[in-house]
Amino acid sequence: MAHYPTSLLRLVKQISQLPGIGEKTAERLALHILKTPVAEAEALSASILEIKKKIQLCEKCFSWSDEKHCTICQDANRDKSLLCVVEQPADMASIERSGAFKGVYHVLSGVLSPINGVGPDDIRLRELLNRLQNENIKEIILALGTNVEGEATASYLHQLFQKFPVIIISRIASGVPIGGDLKYIDQVTLKQAMEHRRKI
Amino acid sequence: MAHYPTSLLRLVKQISQLPGIGEKTAERLALHILKTPVAEAEALSASILEIKKKIQLCEKCFSWSDEKHCTICQDANRDKSLLCVVEQPADMASIERSGAFKGVYHVLSGVLSPINGVGPDDIRLRELLNRLQNENIKEIILALGTNVEGEATASYLHQLFQKFPVIIISRIASGVPIGGDLKYIDQVTLKQAMEHRRKI
Repeated sequence: MAHYPTSLLRLVKQISQLPGIGEKTAERLALHILKTPVAEAEALSASILEIKKKIQLCEKCFSWSDEKHCTICQDANRDKSLLCVVEQPADMASIERSGAFKGVYHVLSGVLSPINGVGPDDIRLRELLNRLQNENIKEIILALGTNVEGEATASYLHQLFQKFPVIIISRIASGVPIGGDLKYIDQVTLKQAMEHRRKI
Repeated sequence: MAHYPTSLLRLVKQISQLPGIGEKTAERLALHILKTPVAEAEALSASILEIKKKIQLCEKCFSWSDEKHCTICQDANRDKSLLCVVEQPADMASIERSGAFKGVYHVLSGVLSPINGVGPDDIRLRELLNRLQNENIKEIILALGTNVEGEATASYLHQLFQKFPVIIISRIASGVPIGGDLKYIDQVTLKQAMEHRRKI
């Protein structure tokens, strides 16, 4: 691509650094931007700057927000007594997409991982305990990953929550994903699915 | 994604309008940009604006350029007596990638297409004839598409060039692509490949 103008080469290089975008796709996207109306390119450029400037963490749940509090914390229709604890804002986004949850969230911004030097003070745990004390929460749903760190964090939180005896603590179910073919499912998942079988 | 901040939603929407980028990929890219250092996001944003501002057409060959003349027209090592005629700057980019051509280019910025109202005055034909008169060109290689418009334009140009009898006119070869499986090649291509067979 040495024959391309320097400014175009620079954009191709920057786009190709985005995840999952190879050099060919980056070139195609850059050429598309070169051909779009100036106003559209300007809008794209401005939006990139805008999310870096505007998006902050919600002061309550620590998910992404344009304002002091995120849309979910501000939403009067959400059940404020139901709190779902997740690791990252992206996990929250996944649950929202499923449409299965009408409560509010708390984003830990990490999980306990002694091997990486992440202890209880490095995640939003103090803020979570504050919420348990000050808000009228009836159930906590732990929706953490099912890897080692997620499991360890969940059991640590479970112990910690014992001092709030009126609060129900639950975990999202583990098992065979919908559409999953049993012969490709790993043994640990199958064991979990068998142990937590439900009567129908 | 209704729970995402408005500014993030806007960026996802804009990215998903790029060719070949679905909503899921757009979301992934936007979240990546949200997490990258501010400087990187600013650089990407600035590059998008820059190509719209800076890139113009080379005054000689009409390909993209940051300056008055493109890097190829400025390059003293390119054979200025060998002129390759292409439809679009992107075609030129493909040929450059192959590394098979060391001459200069002329970008027509279109092909003749009476059905779409594109006539000889709508493409860079006058400029091409000017170059033939004023530059010391010995061979013209027509590297136009092998579709109907490309073929029609090539034969129109061929006729037109008859008044420059000292110039050799050639076309890039048609045939079976390298790695092509004969059973999947269309009949017209095979017929061409058979007609233009070479002795080995």
